[in-house]
Amino acid sequence: MSIDQLISAIIEKKSPIVVGLDPRLEQIPKEIVQKYETMGYRPYDVVKNSLIEFNKGIIDAVKDLVPALKPQVAFYEQYGLAGMEAYAETCRYGKEAGLYIIADVKRGDIGSTSKAYSLGHLGKVTYQDEQLNSFEADSVTVNPYLGDDCLGEFVDEITEFDKGMFVLVKTSNKTSAQLQNLIAGEKTIYEIVGGIVNEWSQKTIGSKGYSPVGAVVGATYPSEMDTLRKVMPNSYFLVPGYGAQGGGGEDVVNAFNEDGLGAIVNSSRGIIFAYKKSGLPYKEAAREATLAMQKDINEALEKSGKRYW
Amino acid sequence: MSIDQLISAIIEKKSPIVVGLDPRLEQIPKEIVQKYETMGYRPYDVVKNSLIEFNKGIIDAVKDLVPALKPQVAFYEQYGLAGMEAYAETCRYGKEAGLYIIADVKRGDIGSTSKAYSLGHLGKVTYQDEQLNSFEADSVTVNPYLGDDCLGEFVDEITEFDKGMFVLVKTSNKTSAQLQNLIAGEKTIYEIVGGIVNEWSQKTIGSKGYSPVGAVVGATYPSEMDTLRKVMPNSYFLVPGYGAQGGGGEDVVNAFNEDGLGAIVNSSRGIIFAYKKSGLPYKEAAREATLAMQKDINEALEKSGKRYW
Repeated sequence: MSIDQLISAIIEKKSPIVVGLDPRLEQIPKEIVQKYETMGYRPYDVVKNSLIEFNKGIIDAVKDLVPALKPQVAFYEQYGLAGMEAYAETCRYGKEAGLYIIADVKRGDIGSTSKAYSLGHLGKVTYQDEQLNSFEADSVTVNPYLGDDCLGEFVDEITEFDKGMFVLVKTSNKTSAQLQNLIAGEKTIYEIVGGIVNEWSQKTIGSKGYSPVGAVVGATYPSEMDTLRKVMPNSYFLVPGYGAQGGGGEDVVNAFNEDGLGAIVNSSRGIIFAYKKSGLPYKEAAREATLAMQKDINEALEKSGKRYW
Repeated sequence: MSIDQLISAIIEKKSPIVVGLDPRLEQIPKEIVQKYETMGYRPYDVVKNSLIEFNKGIIDAVKDLVPALKPQVAFYEQYGLAGMEAYAETCRYGKEAGLYIIADVKRGDIGSTSKAYSLGHLGKVTYQDEQLNSFEADSVTVNPYLGDDCLGEFVDEITEFDKGMFVLVKTSNKTSAQLQNLIAGEKTIYEIVGGIVNEWSQKTIGSKGYSPVGAVVGATYPSEMDTLRKVMPNSYFLVPGYGAQGGGGEDVVNAFNEDGLGAIVNSSRGIIFAYKKSGLPYKEAAREATLAMQKDINEALEKSGKRYW
């Protein structure tokens, strides 16, 4: 799916929102896990099936409300192969539901190695005449520490297969300033990385004015976000840090351009584990939390004069 | 396996060398792939079994010569679940052979997410009373762009389970200077990252004078290596860039301390695909290339006066 198609879906659903699928076995509803245990499954299959069932429930509950999903691969990888099976099936099911899949993998390596990541997540690894069962995503998150050798490899598959990436520019965590806010010459590191992203972005602008080369910019740093919005006018921002990490609607407004586009805001725990606070069944709780987030962000956008719809 | 045990194995084998297991289906001997095809395996199993057989052959050929293996996970991940099965089995087989496994994953994320990576690759993910089939490594490579939130999570499992990590400080690729050589205040970014690594290192020094918190420093930048050796006196260096990437014995000498320890040099393609140049069967070629590398590095160390053994 291309960045243009993502933008169309955002506009159609009036929802610049991505649901983060970060399942933790100890936080998903006990009934799900117990069902597979009672059926006598071995631990590997209990884990795999529990993660898949939980994720499918969330996807079914929110698929008409949001344009995109963002599975965080760490929460699958931690369970080894069982987790990676669940990850692959989650991506497949999400795509089948027509959603844009952002693989939050934060990969990045030297050129020839980045190529392998790019092929595995965005491109195609062919074996003789058949496609192998690699991971299917529309977009990946990429770490910029190795520079353009790395980023360029992803741009190849992005261009060939109409995919996208979000480069880490200013992350949402507490110690993100440690390197990212250092000043080199006249600019901070995050501005310099933003400038690098913008160079790739300017070469790849789509029909709706945005490039598939986007940036991760945390909701927890609104003033940095304001600066970065100007540095990368044609890059879509993937905005983590809303909800559980502390950001609210007013904190993410700076991520949007004056046209009301240019950003997609993620919430993971605040949606998928909403049932723990609300007392509702987990799917209903997730749906309710998504609607509340949509309202919050759309109201903040309206107040700022940036609302598109 | 702890850093102390790695150092003992390096001394015992007189071999500060790690073999990088970066298999590419199109570059491993055709006979291996054809064998599984002829047996009528589906593509998924041809890929999985070919990668495993190739890697086991390499491991058998070099296990008495080197203390460590470094599978680059990208070359498995690109083949989806088939590749990840091969990755898990490669780690298991390497550990069984008594080798130190460096999972070259270059992970790094916000704290709670890095924790998941740390548990999955270094720690234990328990499910009820049983261990899950997560990935087994002794050490991981970690990207520092998110700062101490990220690094600290790995240090937890390193401490609890006697594991290690190598933080990317100065990478071996062509564009590594783009961010890493920027100057912030008085120092380059790589020196600043080196300083952060050194802080973690100083808190975790083992009985042989080295910390399990190490650094990735590319052989392709010998003068930066010289600087970084002084910045992180007690950190082990994982040195990529030897061989296929252009570095030789004389280029890696600066990675070692005066005690002849403190570094382990990686070669991937130069060893595992040595058969393409030498005409020998791939296992013999790998063994010969490893012996040549050992001789080259030990001679360079002797010439520099740093040889330990």
